Amino acid sequence: MGGTSDEAGGRESRGGWGSGGDLTRLSINQETLKQWSLPELAAGCVALGVDQVGLWRAPVQEYGVERAAELMRDNGLTVTSLCRGGFFTASDPKERAAALDDNRAAIDEAAALGTGTLVLVSGGLPAGGRDIAAARERVADAIAVLAPYAADHRVRLAIEPLHPMYASDRCVISTLGQALDIAERFPAAQVGVVVDTYHLWWDDRAPGQIVRAGAGGRIACFQVADWVTPLPEGVLLGRGQLGDGCVDLRGFREQVDAAGYRGAVEVEIFSPALWAREGADVAAEIADRYLRHVC
Amino acid sequence: MGGTSDEAGGRESRGGWGSGGDLTRLSINQETLKQWSLPELAAGCVALGVDQVGLWRAPVQEYGVERAAELMRDNGLTVTSLCRGGFFTASDPKERAAALDDNRAAIDEAAALGTGTLVLVSGGLPAGGRDIAAARERVADAIAVLAPYAADHRVRLAIEPLHPMYASDRCVISTLGQALDIAERFPAAQVGVVVDTYHLWWDDRAPGQIVRAGAGGRIACFQVADWVTPLPEGVLLGRGQLGDGCVDLRGFREQVDAAGYRGAVEVEIFSPALWAREGADVAAEIADRYLRHVC
Repeated sequence: MGGTSDEAGGRESRGGWGSGGDLTRLSINQETLKQWSLPELAAGCVALGVDQVGLWRAPVQEYGVERAAELMRDNGLTVTSLCRGGFFTASDPKERAAALDDNRAAIDEAAALGTGTLVLVSGGLPAGGRDIAAARERVADAIAVLAPYAADHRVRLAIEPLHPMYASDRCVISTLGQALDIAERFPAAQVGVVVDTYHLWWDDRAPGQIVRAGAGGRIACFQVADWVTPLPEGVLLGRGQLGDGCVDLRGFREQVDAAGYRGAVEVEIFSPALWAREGADVAAEIADRYLRHVC
Repeated sequence: MGGTSDEAGGRESRGGWGSGGDLTRLSINQETLKQWSLPELAAGCVALGVDQVGLWRAPVQEYGVERAAELMRDNGLTVTSLCRGGFFTASDPKERAAALDDNRAAIDEAAALGTGTLVLVSGGLPAGGRDIAAARERVADAIAVLAPYAADHRVRLAIEPLHPMYASDRCVISTLGQALDIAERFPAAQVGVVVDTYHLWWDDRAPGQIVRAGAGGRIACFQVADWVTPLPEGVLLGRGQLGDGCVDLRGFREQVDAAGYRGAVEVEIFSPALWAREGADVAAEIADRYLRHVC
């Protein structure tokens, strides 16, 4: 969790955000501002009055994990999540062992960054594979191996259901219900779920599953992005700025709140259109859109 | 339904399909062979030993509805479905009235073609809309208006759940469960559902919903296409030839059969790669793939 309202007020008084809006819960995921280096991200968030960020492994590794942790600490930034572990679905034993090793490294990195949440993108079908049920079981098997290791490092594994359009090549876990079916095999302190509006907005069962997730203390992370069309080739980089699409973002936020979630609202938008712009402009727009469409 | 096995044998003996495979249940959806005119489609199916086709409104209208019906009859072809009615989700009253009129025309055309199945693509969210639950209710409202008219014309409305990646701009009905939730408000003879492998393969609840659909006599149409990635821009025209992707097509066919479905297996693949090839080659490949991956 980020700062209290008083702290947020303090940030605002140092000139970051003039509108008086409450950015206490806002976390900016680094991938949303890919044009920024880690120091630029830290400085930009401080300037804006945002004290939470979501980080990704590759840029953190490039900068140096310990150095990144120090940079965040020095700027008073809390790391709300690390993306990402996962890719558990290989059927080849060597590949599976390598994936487990890589996930242990991800847990180590999350612990070093001081975040309690490692987001898991579970993986798609192996080449030539057609058995999605078996692939989902391999996800559960891998989590069974990793959860105790994560718990030892005070990191919670957060299973992220991805939109069904990614089911074959990125993530066989497509609904919040499926994510919870696996998460609930483990203690809530060890395995939670990610609620991401981009992936779940279409699902009429999501509201009920949010209640279920909240009742079990399973909501580890809440991410927001809007849904816009047409989808680009490959469908990875077509997320919309908050308010530009058809997702009832405020409705989602109210649902996770009603389910007992008190954590950050992490803005994670993969969009070449945003990446092409001046980072500070995008960050200010995100804060504005967050206040208007999510708060 | 198409011909009996004896009739299929007769077709084969006239030289259509040399492998001895049973094409009795195969129906070729016209959109799969978009490079063919209606007469070419009819001749090509006869040559292949296929006696069922799925048709689309626009090319049928262009050719003339009565003339198309005659062409099909003259070639001994059964029309297994007409695509498509639907697009029921406008909130503007004038647009809604126009959609209902257009759907009545679609029902008339289906009746003229002698098919008992009008496939419904329900429509996406209206511009600026964010209330997907309300849009789904408008789908049900429209079907309530149209079902008696369809029944008078011996046409069954077949609600097709489309993959969730189309939820915002084409179809707010994304799962077989949602389709059945609406269909079951009406008599089974009036409103059924479409089971399309391309749209449903990712859903762990689909098998149970197929059982539910079969038990209620709701499976009006069974369509097959494979799932391949990367998806193209706009995600409309990225379907895979049978066997090229990750869908357990035979498993789906066995499930609908076990649920009591005895109708056609309609191959509906939107693929510029297939459209660019010689129609007869594509048709022969479809028959071969059907026998190897679906039968």
